[in-house]
Amino acid sequence: MFDAAELGQRVSKREFKERELELRTKLLTLQYRTQELARFPVLIDFAGVEGAGKTTTINMLNMWMDPRWIRTTGYQEPTQVEMARPRFWRYWRDMPPKGRVGLYLSGRYSRPLIGRVYDHIDEHEFDKRLSEIIRFENALVDDGALVLKFWMHLGAAQQEKRLRKLEADPLRSYQVNEEDWRNHENYENFIAAAEDLITRTNRVGAAWHIVEGGNENYRHLRVGEIIAGELGRHLDAQEQEAANERPPARVASPDTPQVVTVFDALDLTLALPKSEYKEKLATYQAQLGELGRKAQENGISTVLVFEGPDASGKGGAIRRTVWSLDARSFTVHQFAAPTEEERAHHYLWRFWKRLPRAGQVAVFDRSWYGRVLVERAEGFATATEWRRAYNEINDFEHQIVDHGTLLLKFWLHIDEDEQLVRFQKREKSPYKHWKLTDEDWRNRELWEAYEQYGQDIVQYTSTKKAPWILVEANNKGYARLKVLKTLIDHLSARLDDNGIE
Amino acid sequence: MFDAAELGQRVSKREFKERELELRTKLLTLQYRTQELARFPVLIDFAGVEGAGKTTTINMLNMWMDPRWIRTTGYQEPTQVEMARPRFWRYWRDMPPKGRVGLYLSGRYSRPLIGRVYDHIDEHEFDKRLSEIIRFENALVDDGALVLKFWMHLGAAQQEKRLRKLEADPLRSYQVNEEDWRNHENYENFIAAAEDLITRTNRVGAAWHIVEGGNENYRHLRVGEIIAGELGRHLDAQEQEAANERPPARVASPDTPQVVTVFDALDLTLALPKSEYKEKLATYQAQLGELGRKAQENGISTVLVFEGPDASGKGGAIRRTVWSLDARSFTVHQFAAPTEEERAHHYLWRFWKRLPRAGQVAVFDRSWYGRVLVERAEGFATATEWRRAYNEINDFEHQIVDHGTLLLKFWLHIDEDEQLVRFQKREKSPYKHWKLTDEDWRNRELWEAYEQYGQDIVQYTSTKKAPWILVEANNKGYARLKVLKTLIDHLSARLDDNGIE
Repeated sequence: MFDAAELGQRVSKREFKERELELRTKLLTLQYRTQELARFPVLIDFAGVEGAGKTTTINMLNMWMDPRWIRTTGYQEPTQVEMARPRFWRYWRDMPPKGRVGLYLSGRYSRPLIGRVYDHIDEHEFDKRLSEIIRFENALVDDGALVLKFWMHLGAAQQEKRLRKLEADPLRSYQVNEEDWRNHENYENFIAAAEDLITRTNRVGAAWHIVEGGNENYRHLRVGEIIAGELGRHLDAQEQEAANERPPARVASPDTPQVVTVFDALDLTLALPKSEYKEKLATYQAQLGELGRKAQENGISTVLVFEGPDASGKGGAIRRTVWSLDARSFTVHQFAAPTEEERAHHYLWRFWKRLPRAGQVAVFDRSWYGRVLVERAEGFATATEWRRAYNEINDFEHQIVDHGTLLLKFWLHIDEDEQLVRFQKREKSPYKHWKLTDEDWRNRELWEAYEQYGQDIVQYTSTKKAPWILVEANNKGYARLKVLKTLIDHLSARLDDNGIE
Repeated sequence: MFDAAELGQRVSKREFKERELELRTKLLTLQYRTQELARFPVLIDFAGVEGAGKTTTINMLNMWMDPRWIRTTGYQEPTQVEMARPRFWRYWRDMPPKGRVGLYLSGRYSRPLIGRVYDHIDEHEFDKRLSEIIRFENALVDDGALVLKFWMHLGAAQQEKRLRKLEADPLRSYQVNEEDWRNHENYENFIAAAEDLITRTNRVGAAWHIVEGGNENYRHLRVGEIIAGELGRHLDAQEQEAANERPPARVASPDTPQVVTVFDALDLTLALPKSEYKEKLATYQAQLGELGRKAQENGISTVLVFEGPDASGKGGAIRRTVWSLDARSFTVHQFAAPTEEERAHHYLWRFWKRLPRAGQVAVFDRSWYGRVLVERAEGFATATEWRRAYNEINDFEHQIVDHGTLLLKFWLHIDEDEQLVRFQKREKSPYKHWKLTDEDWRNRELWEAYEQYGQDIVQYTSTKKAPWILVEANNKGYARLKVLKTLIDHLSARLDDNGIE
């Protein structure tokens, strides 16, 4: 594999000058087209052997291209802010919007590779890390992104020579440290792990390109020309696709509807007297306040998701839930149509951004399930896109849970009649009629379709790690108490598990 | 996940009769369209809980659809013939051609699932097995196949009831055995492993569908309707694609050619006197004959791949290599354009079929690398197809090697001048001119492009497990001896590793 990048490739200064001008013009033109189309982001990752010129190549690209639409991010050991979230949070945070280019140094590949070379992680863990990366890249590529990965290479002897030269250069000696030499001593291990890594994570749309790093002129031109070639091809395809695109079509119902759904199995008559509700509410809220304080002190984060038909009482349940929590410890996120900035990113981006830091509670009133509910209903997501979303959502949620966050997903369900009663009440109420829109009446027409969507959601995304809790919500009091009690039970079990009294 | 399939779904006899007619007509129409288009195969897998009616559902599908274009395969413990090849060999063997439908029972998911439930394989091994399955399915889906996977489900109590009922039925009691009861006792483990399996291997184009198995009418209709829905959508998309398809375009050269390639680093002047060649040839052949006999006796299989420019001496080297082997122990496979049957399958199918059984040598004169050589050059494979092929090839080769087969890949290289000399000689020779075709002269025009393709091949597919051996072949004698010597060294090392004297 790497033999093909130990050939002593060279480009003379004169040839470089000639080819550079052409390449620069090409890259700029492509960058403008990308920015104008604003249909996909470009992520360019640099990995490879120490001393193979990753840094200078990134600098050169920044010089060649329009710096307004390019951003370079170099990663180090995760900061405290980063450690408080799942591993991929920082990579989602630093994702360029559609139309822009991100350059990454020591990115997602760096830690698994080094970990494997020094045996800090075993083969199984290495496999897992690579699988995480593959799923991350799949989500981006499936969404249209262009992901390019460069492995900058030097043979062992070349590397030694290069490190010595860098050390001797006062302007660049800072680039070489002890770790670089330690890596050099482990060259063979390093290369073996790199081959594994490249073989397993190479895919169309996120391909590895191995570039010989010994000669600066060659290296710069080669990287630039590969970017130009790949970006040009990707732009052509995406422009074509944009031209063929049809306006969204509303989808009435799945082609194989289920007669009975999980919602039919719910007993929506469940209710309780007002007095009992008031009494229990006060007790639960007091308990939750106490548990919430402990969770906050001990850095245990919680994510609560609320879904269900319009007027099923999500807002009311949320208000009663957060009532007794420390105001500094929670945020309620409401989701309407995405903003312009959000539309310029992967649909999960706006949710990744809002994951709570240690000890915090994030409440999602409507959530990423919009992808397989409203976006499916209105045709905003294509059939392929929403079908793919179940996996992407499972993966997202499993990352949240594996990080140690408590995740609870509540589906508040009411029946069609109850919704009508509530809509009519809202119409008449002077302080609630703003809550009712034409949209709501429109969605009501799709009642049955939405029940099917819900059935699919439970089937594909109710997992051991992140089960759905279906809440009978025709009676508001019953629903609110069930939400509170469920949260209390899970939170106190979690505190117990962590040995917190 | 499975709650959504424990709802007690039922369909009455009367409703069944009504819906069955419509469904049957629909399925037959779809089957004819699939057969007529002959553009993709359909693979339908049945897995799930014992007693959930996999067998009767398969029987029903066979009744409903046209049996000429459908084939059912049930797997048991691998046979001796199957054990002699990599794990996926039998699944490749049983792949339906484009336009046909394959139904599978106890297929690729069965053994990893059972293995995990009974702890015969650990989590790491389970992950690996699932990754193998994912890669297998990706290769098919990327090639256009429709892969459907049904999980037939019953709750624990339902299962017990069902097994007892089956046992009591003299016509069906054979369907229940001790293992089924053992699985029932492990119901919770089974379901937990199943959720893992489904979550990780669910993808668009190869999605899992969970079907409640308690009521036969419901189950049959549900499976049939899902097949009809999925197949209908897939057909629409594929017919659309077929309509938009353009004739293949010849591709001159990669958009980012490399000035220096691995072939430039070869010393093609390497040669040796005829007398020395003759003497060594005899020695090597004697050695190889001896080693080959031992390998044959001990069930060690070998796969030899020969690639390189036209007239680089592949045939001659192969003849000298097999010369001293037992005629019953080897097969030389030559590859020209694929036959009609081969074109109706995935491009790797014809090579999977030819993997040697235990103790045999399979020699490939031209090989699966055609995908990234001639098919790339002539535009028979799209850019996406040949780019994807490097991964598919690595995966194929790693399965061969992991199975314990010795795999050696020889690239016999000559320069352009030497090729011209050999072509001219062939033209003049009364018994060799048949070897020279217009095609050969045409390929010669693409000499530089082919060198770039070779560079890419070495870069992406020369791995530790399956390295390329580049052979300097301007001198035929030198090349033949290098091939022989390499094979002798690897074969004797392998015999040593296996403790064979």
